[in-house]
Amino acid sequence: MNALSTADTLNFRSDNVATVCPEILRALDAANHGPAASYGDDAHSQALNRIYSELFETAVTVFPVSTGTAANALGLAASVRSYGAVFCHEEAHIHTAEGAATEAFTGGAKLLPLPGAQFRLHPDGLRTALARVQRGVRNRAQPDVVSITQASEYGTVYPLDDIAEIGALAHGAGLKVHMDGARFANALATLGCSAAAMTWQRGVDILSFGATKNGAMNTEAIVVFDETLVEPLSYRLRRAGQTWSKMRFAAVQLTAYVEGGLYLRMARHANALAARLARELAALPGIELVAPVEANLIFLSMPPAVITMLAAEGVLFARRDQNVIRLVTRFDGREEEIDRLLAIARRAVARTAGQT
Amino acid sequence: MNALSTADTLNFRSDNVATVCPEILRALDAANHGPAASYGDDAHSQALNRIYSELFETAVTVFPVSTGTAANALGLAASVRSYGAVFCHEEAHIHTAEGAATEAFTGGAKLLPLPGAQFRLHPDGLRTALARVQRGVRNRAQPDVVSITQASEYGTVYPLDDIAEIGALAHGAGLKVHMDGARFANALATLGCSAAAMTWQRGVDILSFGATKNGAMNTEAIVVFDETLVEPLSYRLRRAGQTWSKMRFAAVQLTAYVEGGLYLRMARHANALAARLARELAALPGIELVAPVEANLIFLSMPPAVITMLAAEGVLFARRDQNVIRLVTRFDGREEEIDRLLAIARRAVARTAGQT
Amino acid sequence: MNALSTADTLNFRSDNVATVCPEILRALDAANHGPAASYGDDAHSQALNRIYSELFETAVTVFPVSTGTAANALGLAASVRSYGAVFCHEEAHIHTAEGAATEAFTGGAKLLPLPGAQFRLHPDGLRTALARVQRGVRNRAQPDVVSITQASEYGTVYPLDDIAEIGALAHGAGLKVHMDGARFANALATLGCSAAAMTWQRGVDILSFGATKNGAMNTEAIVVFDETLVEPLSYRLRRAGQTWSKMRFAAVQLTAYVEGGLYLRMARHANALAARLARELAALPGIELVAPVEANLIFLSMPPAVITMLAAEGVLFARRDQNVIRLVTRFDGREEEIDRLLAIARRAVARTAGQT
Amino acid sequence: MNALSTADTLNFRSDNVATVCPEILRALDAANHGPAASYGDDAHSQALNRIYSELFETAVTVFPVSTGTAANALGLAASVRSYGAVFCHEEAHIHTAEGAATEAFTGGAKLLPLPGAQFRLHPDGLRTALARVQRGVRNRAQPDVVSITQASEYGTVYPLDDIAEIGALAHGAGLKVHMDGARFANALATLGCSAAAMTWQRGVDILSFGATKNGAMNTEAIVVFDETLVEPLSYRLRRAGQTWSKMRFAAVQLTAYVEGGLYLRMARHANALAARLARELAALPGIELVAPVEANLIFLSMPPAVITMLAAEGVLFARRDQNVIRLVTRFDGREEEIDRLLAIARRAVARTAGQT
Repeated sequence: MNALSTADTLNFRSDNVATVCPEILRALDAANHGPAASYGDDAHSQALNRIYSELFETAVTVFPVSTGTAANALGLAASVRSYGAVFCHEEAHIHTAEGAATEAFTGGAKLLPLPGAQFRLHPDGLRTALARVQRGVRNRAQPDVVSITQASEYGTVYPLDDIAEIGALAHGAGLKVHMDGARFANALATLGCSAAAMTWQRGVDILSFGATKNGAMNTEAIVVFDETLVEPLSYRLRRAGQTWSKMRFAAVQLTAYVEGGLYLRMARHANALAARLARELAALPGIELVAPVEANLIFLSMPPAVITMLAAEGVLFARRDQNVIRLVTRFDGREEEIDRLLAIARRAVARTAGQT
Repeated sequence: MNALSTADTLNFRSDNVATVCPEILRALDAANHGPAASYGDDAHSQALNRIYSELFETAVTVFPVSTGTAANALGLAASVRSYGAVFCHEEAHIHTAEGAATEAFTGGAKLLPLPGAQFRLHPDGLRTALARVQRGVRNRAQPDVVSITQASEYGTVYPLDDIAEIGALAHGAGLKVHMDGARFANALATLGCSAAAMTWQRGVDILSFGATKNGAMNTEAIVVFDETLVEPLSYRLRRAGQTWSKMRFAAVQLTAYVEGGLYLRMARHANALAARLARELAALPGIELVAPVEANLIFLSMPPAVITMLAAEGVLFARRDQNVIRLVTRFDGREEEIDRLLAIARRAVARTAGQT
Repeated sequence: MNALSTADTLNFRSDNVATVCPEILRALDAANHGPAASYGDDAHSQALNRIYSELFETAVTVFPVSTGTAANALGLAASVRSYGAVFCHEEAHIHTAEGAATEAFTGGAKLLPLPGAQFRLHPDGLRTALARVQRGVRNRAQPDVVSITQASEYGTVYPLDDIAEIGALAHGAGLKVHMDGARFANALATLGCSAAAMTWQRGVDILSFGATKNGAMNTEAIVVFDETLVEPLSYRLRRAGQTWSKMRFAAVQLTAYVEGGLYLRMARHANALAARLARELAALPGIELVAPVEANLIFLSMPPAVITMLAAEGVLFARRDQNVIRLVTRFDGREEEIDRLLAIARRAVARTAGQT
Repeated sequence: MNALSTADTLNFRSDNVATVCPEILRALDAANHGPAASYGDDAHSQALNRIYSELFETAVTVFPVSTGTAANALGLAASVRSYGAVFCHEEAHIHTAEGAATEAFTGGAKLLPLPGAQFRLHPDGLRTALARVQRGVRNRAQPDVVSITQASEYGTVYPLDDIAEIGALAHGAGLKVHMDGARFANALATLGCSAAAMTWQRGVDILSFGATKNGAMNTEAIVVFDETLVEPLSYRLRRAGQTWSKMRFAAVQLTAYVEGGLYLRMARHANALAARLARELAALPGIELVAPVEANLIFLSMPPAVITMLAAEGVLFARRDQNVIRLVTRFDGREEEIDRLLAIARRAVARTAGQT
């Protein structure tokens, strides 16, 4: 068996290396009795809209999909004209790490990347960009949507006021607002507000509601607040091969995931592990946080020699740079793993210090 | 709770109303320990190619995907030029019931439907069609692939000789051969040959290997025999949102599905239920088979009054016509359900006979 | 120099082998003075909408494009959802001879071919097809448009009542009506009605207004009656590379083409040549018309030996079959060419008769 | 008549406001005799490859197209996988001013913009970018082509050594080289080398050969050096509606355009006008060149008050900024127009100086 999958590996590479939470496995088991109508006509699937409408305190339509890339690209495809464009942060996952899925599913719409500190669009940056849009000019891609990632790819979280301002700017210019919520729960746990307060009450029209990273089994959801997007999206999903025939097994996951606030409890745990890990690592000489830790992602600068030693000890992480690594904590992470990682890091720092 | 999903409904509408087989649920549970590398780099996923290469007695590459539509449309997209075309039966699922997914994923390739008795392409029909191809004529879509469905949408099964002849014709004309195997196991159980004999040994280059209808949880596979298709397909799948991050949960399903011949046992059961049901229904006055029953699909003609009574008794099925219905049996179907359906049908026939 | 282009060849292969009419060349010359705003902002282009609105007796928007394929595929792309579909005749040029341009520009919409005598959709055929549409079924391509070709690919002309009935059926079902008018002028000359009467007054929403075959220099127009299509079409044209920078040279062609009814005079001439040629050929023993000659296309059956002799004498035509050829007459055709062709045909028939 | 098109307007807005050169109009007239085979099978079209192969001193295939956007986007579409990517300058026309045509025609390939002084890619910049490419990573768009614009959108010209270095870097990394030559002749006139030396001898695989801006009538060409691109391109052009039926009228333009070096004489004239205009304007107080003038584009900074006065006097130009305008000279520009513009500018500068 491959070293990457042994249970005692210190795997901080991503939250998608996680297991599935037991509540979801139990829900799958419980749903596995007798025939059920396919493609979402079963009772479990029919209940989803109601359950999520309660969660979001407004009428929503929920479409389970198999991946975050599908959620983002198809949600955007339903929101943008094929000759349209999407404003996003220049480090947005949709722009840098989804294989141009949005360009493909939209039929060639353009992503218009904007800068912004800590991987967040700043309302002022969006305002400037909107002011420069050449509306009606036929050889310019026409912006139809602004996409933000909450929590961001840098582990930072948009303050509610920023979302509201972005929402108001977008709507004022005739654009829709898309939220990539691959780590929605982690951001929501940090802000401590309601799901409504972080989305439609601040102007979000359509949401990629992440669940896989935080405990589900390869199941995400698109949550649609703007009902005009529902019909086009439903057709696009089916032809994209994103409408499961045995839909009940997606529906019960998404139901179990939010029932009794499970998703928030799991996210809080991951966030707390990250907070502790970041705090203790940053206290070591030569190690510094390069981004605020507001969710379950940690970006740290440290001497290359320390990075090398961590890797040599079998710690798995993503290297971003000569000096920078990313560590990700998980809903199923254990304090004991943090302890072990800290011990390794302390030894590495000590040894490196000895070397210089 | 919706009537469609109660466990004692006589549901013969499709095999996608089925449950998940217990072996697969157990495999999911067993795989759910500790972190595992994502996107197919885990040990379970890495083993898939080996396991399926053994099953198919040749080196294959396996890509798990979430639906049959994704398997077909993306497999075809990797096999056809965007200005190319796909020969298929005029009743092929890819042509009639996938929302033009193939046209979308290929960038506008054309499906060229051909007639053929019992929903099967006949080698002679393909020969004629190939002879009429206007190779090199720039305003004609250029055929690149022949797609056949095994078992067909009519529940019929291609004889091995027909597959071989279609394969030879296609390859002789520079086309690849795609097999839509949504009900691959049912066809294989009928023919009683090896998986190799029904595919690459007869010329199949790429296969949509169905698993969901026959016991898996929303997991299908693309099995690639022609290795030149592997790289383009891998990129297309990722950008289509069809590459799961927690891939192990797809891999273990596909492993459990074939382990010890499970998939064939399940298919044989469904086929046997269909054979019995078809035989006993066709023995009733006024009811006739309109297609040979070679897998788990049954097409029957019967008086509209009988159809109405079946529906009134809560039997679920697909109506194809004034006089024609389709019944589908499942891996998890029970003899007792067949008994109940037969009893209802006998009463309906008796009552209708009394009416005339 | 290639035999195909010598001026005295008897070229009946297509009307696109024609010259450009002198009035259009003069207009190009006249427009060639001083700088002019680009992309349609010049005075000539600005006048087009007015001139064609007068011609069509209603407010229209005109977009010059470079080919009929562009006119059809982009006009349809602006009229159909990417997951939509287009009803057309099974022999429609858009379906058989445009390299799947419509599938490509629409992002994968489906053409739904219907049968119909003499290459025309019959209103009853459309009625039946519309009745079978599975509205709202997510895995079925959703019809958005009906496309008819006037004159048809068989040289037949839709009666006004048929257009009106097709228009009413389409609109009643929420579909738009597209007319491929590659030979618009020939049909209009035959019917003798107004351009308005053959289009929007009978329900046509968008028209590919052919000009190249009938005297223009590689310039066609999309005439839009349904103003909701104007904006999306304008963007699609620009990104398709179909918006000329020196637009005046397209605009003055389209202006000269219709000025004083020039286009109708040219079409009447071509039609008259076809009528005479058809009449005299069909009078010969063994030669029969296989379609009524209602425009400038003639489909004839004749003994293969006669066909061979025509070809041997250097006559250029399109062979459709063992026994069937197509002859096309042109706006710049001369009676003397008809005389020569008839003489050759008479000799061929006489010789063949002698052979048997 | 609109002020924009009067012959005595001082129109420096773009070179696409120009007329058609008389040699081309005469060639159109001369070609207008008798029928000719369509879609490029006529003698004039058949001669094109030979004529351009002589011009480029190697075997090339030439495809006439209607616009520069079509030339670029379709040439790139034939060169890139749908999941591929194109390196280009961040100010490249294909990225900023073609309505995402490349994204559309490629099926969603990504443009990867790079910085570079004076709107030119620098070989070092490309080297760095190539080093960062994540080959084989499935969620990263895979670069297949580098596109450079010669002359650039800033009127600068790539030195031959830079083209060669870019070509070598690209080929070394498995990428093709595309040249957007909307102002090919202007660059060639500046460098004074052969067409071969500026293209395939330095690594260019496919070229958008501009002709419209420099005297042709809405006719550009794609010149293909890499013969593997010929077949896919030919199909893509036809389905894009970019293959004219009366092809002879494009072919004779492209023949006349280069015959006896006409295109270079016209470009030299435009360049000389630009050089004089730039020199004399930059000599005025407060006016400065912001880019070197190496072709027929001039970018100048000047006080906003001067810009306002130029506009008030009816001079047409493109404003880029508060302080920056672009002036473009044309093959059909006259010294007298330069005189008048200079006189207006001198008055404006004098008056503005008086104001401060």
